[in-house]
Amino acid sequence: MEIGVIGLGHMGIGIARNIAKAGHRLTVWNRDPAKTDALVAEGAVRAASPAEAAQGELVVTMLANDAAVEAVTFGEKGILQANSRAIHVSMSTIAPTLVTRLDTAHREAGMRFLSAPVFGRPDVAAAGALNIVAAGDADLIAACQPLFEAIGQRVFPVGDRPEQANIVKLSGNFMILAAVESFAEAMALGEKNGVAPATFVEVMTETLFGGRSHRVYGEILAEQRFRPAGFTAPLGLKDMNLVASLANDSRVPMPVLGVIRDHLLSAMAREGEDLDWSGLALAVRADAGL
Amino acid sequence: MEIGVIGLGHMGIGIARNIAKAGHRLTVWNRDPAKTDALVAEGAVRAASPAEAAQGELVVTMLANDAAVEAVTFGEKGILQANSRAIHVSMSTIAPTLVTRLDTAHREAGMRFLSAPVFGRPDVAAAGALNIVAAGDADLIAACQPLFEAIGQRVFPVGDRPEQANIVKLSGNFMILAAVESFAEAMALGEKNGVAPATFVEVMTETLFGGRSHRVYGEILAEQRFRPAGFTAPLGLKDMNLVASLANDSRVPMPVLGVIRDHLLSAMAREGEDLDWSGLALAVRADAGL
Amino acid sequence: MEIGVIGLGHMGIGIARNIAKAGHRLTVWNRDPAKTDALVAEGAVRAASPAEAAQGELVVTMLANDAAVEAVTFGEKGILQANSRAIHVSMSTIAPTLVTRLDTAHREAGMRFLSAPVFGRPDVAAAGALNIVAAGDADLIAACQPLFEAIGQRVFPVGDRPEQANIVKLSGNFMILAAVESFAEAMALGEKNGVAPATFVEVMTETLFGGRSHRVYGEILAEQRFRPAGFTAPLGLKDMNLVASLANDSRVPMPVLGVIRDHLLSAMAREGEDLDWSGLALAVRADAGL
Amino acid sequence: MEIGVIGLGHMGIGIARNIAKAGHRLTVWNRDPAKTDALVAEGAVRAASPAEAAQGELVVTMLANDAAVEAVTFGEKGILQANSRAIHVSMSTIAPTLVTRLDTAHREAGMRFLSAPVFGRPDVAAAGALNIVAAGDADLIAACQPLFEAIGQRVFPVGDRPEQANIVKLSGNFMILAAVESFAEAMALGEKNGVAPATFVEVMTETLFGGRSHRVYGEILAEQRFRPAGFTAPLGLKDMNLVASLANDSRVPMPVLGVIRDHLLSAMAREGEDLDWSGLALAVRADAGL
Repeated sequence: MEIGVIGLGHMGIGIARNIAKAGHRLTVWNRDPAKTDALVAEGAVRAASPAEAAQGELVVTMLANDAAVEAVTFGEKGILQANSRAIHVSMSTIAPTLVTRLDTAHREAGMRFLSAPVFGRPDVAAAGALNIVAAGDADLIAACQPLFEAIGQRVFPVGDRPEQANIVKLSGNFMILAAVESFAEAMALGEKNGVAPATFVEVMTETLFGGRSHRVYGEILAEQRFRPAGFTAPLGLKDMNLVASLANDSRVPMPVLGVIRDHLLSAMAREGEDLDWSGLALAVRADAGL
Repeated sequence: MEIGVIGLGHMGIGIARNIAKAGHRLTVWNRDPAKTDALVAEGAVRAASPAEAAQGELVVTMLANDAAVEAVTFGEKGILQANSRAIHVSMSTIAPTLVTRLDTAHREAGMRFLSAPVFGRPDVAAAGALNIVAAGDADLIAACQPLFEAIGQRVFPVGDRPEQANIVKLSGNFMILAAVESFAEAMALGEKNGVAPATFVEVMTETLFGGRSHRVYGEILAEQRFRPAGFTAPLGLKDMNLVASLANDSRVPMPVLGVIRDHLLSAMAREGEDLDWSGLALAVRADAGL
Repeated sequence: MEIGVIGLGHMGIGIARNIAKAGHRLTVWNRDPAKTDALVAEGAVRAASPAEAAQGELVVTMLANDAAVEAVTFGEKGILQANSRAIHVSMSTIAPTLVTRLDTAHREAGMRFLSAPVFGRPDVAAAGALNIVAAGDADLIAACQPLFEAIGQRVFPVGDRPEQANIVKLSGNFMILAAVESFAEAMALGEKNGVAPATFVEVMTETLFGGRSHRVYGEILAEQRFRPAGFTAPLGLKDMNLVASLANDSRVPMPVLGVIRDHLLSAMAREGEDLDWSGLALAVRADAGL
Repeated sequence: MEIGVIGLGHMGIGIARNIAKAGHRLTVWNRDPAKTDALVAEGAVRAASPAEAAQGELVVTMLANDAAVEAVTFGEKGILQANSRAIHVSMSTIAPTLVTRLDTAHREAGMRFLSAPVFGRPDVAAAGALNIVAAGDADLIAACQPLFEAIGQRVFPVGDRPEQANIVKLSGNFMILAAVESFAEAMALGEKNGVAPATFVEVMTETLFGGRSHRVYGEILAEQRFRPAGFTAPLGLKDMNLVASLANDSRVPMPVLGVIRDHLLSAMAREGEDLDWSGLALAVRADAGL
């Protein structure tokens, strides 16, 4: 297929490379064009604008935040001006309300839109092993299978309204931080009573909580390895605020979300903004006098 | 070895049977002696009192609450009156403060005490596959290996002060309910936005949260299968109150624990006390107008 | 003085009338001009646009929300196009970030801006007894004394940055709902133990909490008089979200704010959106099974 | 009347003196008899035991905690062994469950019991201006009028079950700390945005929150005057734990209570146990990086 990729950050670069590796024709665009050099050297075509990157069958966006997605879509020479039949596959973690707006705008422009955010860090993207959460028309999900096979290990269709994929993705991030928070509370209790953090983590991950999140963050918590950040606290807070905004509009009280946000704020207020998002544990520790 | 088992409820019966199956000489005692009949028919000896059940090398207690453990230990013809060298292996989920008191009392009586609560439901106990959290003198843990091999799949030594095992066990129960709470909040958000609960659970358990607790409780939550209770809400609340009491004495704020307790109270206030402890999700749902 | 008033809702009408009664020359503008009829009949001048209402020495805005203030200020024939030296006295409860933006815009337009939100319901506005929280240049506060004397009982200068007045005003609303929340929790506890709500309110207001908020809301809570709303739950939620946004930007955890917001959401989810903001007590009651 | 007073701490001394001043015959007992010297010098009779202090028509107990009240009531030569018809007027802030137990025990012993805890600090007790919350048989409340007139400014009958008075008293203490907590959150928000704490307190107490609690604690918070303690954080925590225990048994979720307890724990963990109970504000400040 002819596939464009817009956004070549830590995640986008891995995605783009796996698309090329699978034999698709790859076109790339990035705000800072220097980041496209390596891929062009490997055979990709450099597009002059987002619209130009959207001339093929699919155009993937993988960007940092709502504003960046808005810019490449609605902006000058943006995707909506492609005058093509490309399916825009949005993989960024953005607000569900923006996704709804994007979907409508694409329909009005005669284009098609699919939301497909992913679970997985940059190393997983590089390995082509992302988990993809997709929402939108079933036809579009089917049409994107070649893309998904190139970059991911599994696709989870979660609904026919594109914003539902983002709700699932954001909820997953909420559940990660809820796991971090409860781990941190229990570990503070244990530590004050002489139970070694690493011991507690081992018991939990070898019995009740053997999944990936608990293994990854249990180790980080036991070692208090919050810098350098894998995913920063301000980015985590941004996602939690998106969840809170949705919860507000949906009239869903989420008290654990409130605890998480307060601890992120507290950790940033005391430790600075370069912390890993799991550094909210430092607020838990400080509150316990540790 | 000669091993006594005191307490033949859902958990104790499986433990006792696996002890016998492993070739140890089994003596049993239960407040209601009728519950010993089956095991006696299978070859076990019926003790006339807790003290008599403690004449061998080990005596296991597996009882419902603090009061029951106090009764068989400190009461008339209780374990402390055994005048033996038996190691008392306490497997019940009881207050850390009681465990400390038991340890001291056994030392004063010239006996030995080990705390070894377990993770695993009755079916796991029956299968001899419990996970055992042990704390106390390393010598005692070593001496109990034949017992642990008979009933469990793995032993986790977590410290040399017996109450530490109970802190880890209670913290594990806290983490289970924290997982239920965060799952319930996210699922309410999803459900109000058209994401099917079972779909959300599948995405989570197949990606970030593949451990046992999330699989077991994710399914219960998706099906809203809160009755009959596997472990009742009042028992869950009792455990959470033990955690809260310890957190209070240790000066450790645990806000997620507060959320859990409030939701358990609310669920019981509205739904009655026969709910499964994971039924705290019903409070989350009701608060969202679901 | 020549004073314009923009916004003749429940609050603005009382303010305008007291300005006229004090002998100032009154000009009025309202989006729906029908609402100006009564005042014009009483002698006020009807302005054709916000800009025209800003030709005197002062122009007061008292509007429902951020969007309305933005419209009359930045819009076509808005205040910023008045080409006058009027001081814009903003009395609406709006976002501190908007206030900062308004202040800057006025300076750039060669105009002057003062923020002066008020405490007091429509009856208090009609009586000319508002409490005014003012922030901005001391010169401007001084220049507005004739206005403040006409409409209020007291002026509280709280800082020289206009947004500070709005922070104090919003914090006051937060404190009102915090008082409602704690009252509701204590009353639910009492009621379940046979203490009559009205009795509890009487003890509190006659001893520890004799201030106006506790008297007003204690009575509402004891009588469960949540409809018709004096100030609706959605408006209360809007204010709490403004506080939350500021707290987020300022890195200030506010856990009681989280409780309040969750209970507002829950009350609206279950009872509809026509509740008084103090109807968050219904969430507290429902959670207790009352 | 002949009135005994048991417990001559900061509160009891003032109460006893006002009883004598009103012309009643005063008998006193204190665990440390040295504390009775001053009153005996002023004309009071020193009792040799609690039972002896209960030979008159009324015997007042004003003690620090449950254990002290249990000792003077159930202990050797305790009140229940007075073999008199004295009404035991319990003024201490103790657990509602203990009050119920005391009531039953007095009935069984042919004695009478009334619960009458008070609002007011030692200076108020010395001035004879306490507010008295009374619960029990109306006859007993009537019989105690001469006592109440001697020591208080007003009596609030709140129910016919003695423990109801303690529920109201404890709820009042909860409401005080809820006011402190919300004040502290708002003041942290203001302070980070340049609003002076004393200014915020003034606006609140002169407008919405003019009652005694807000005036007293607003000043303490603005000055951060948390030492020496008027009422220590551990005593405050003890009272909040009594509320939590009652809420637990009554199935009443109280999330603001959870916030308060966590902040008391956090403040003590970081600052030590000699803080005033309003020092929970230091946890709020630390969490905001102040």
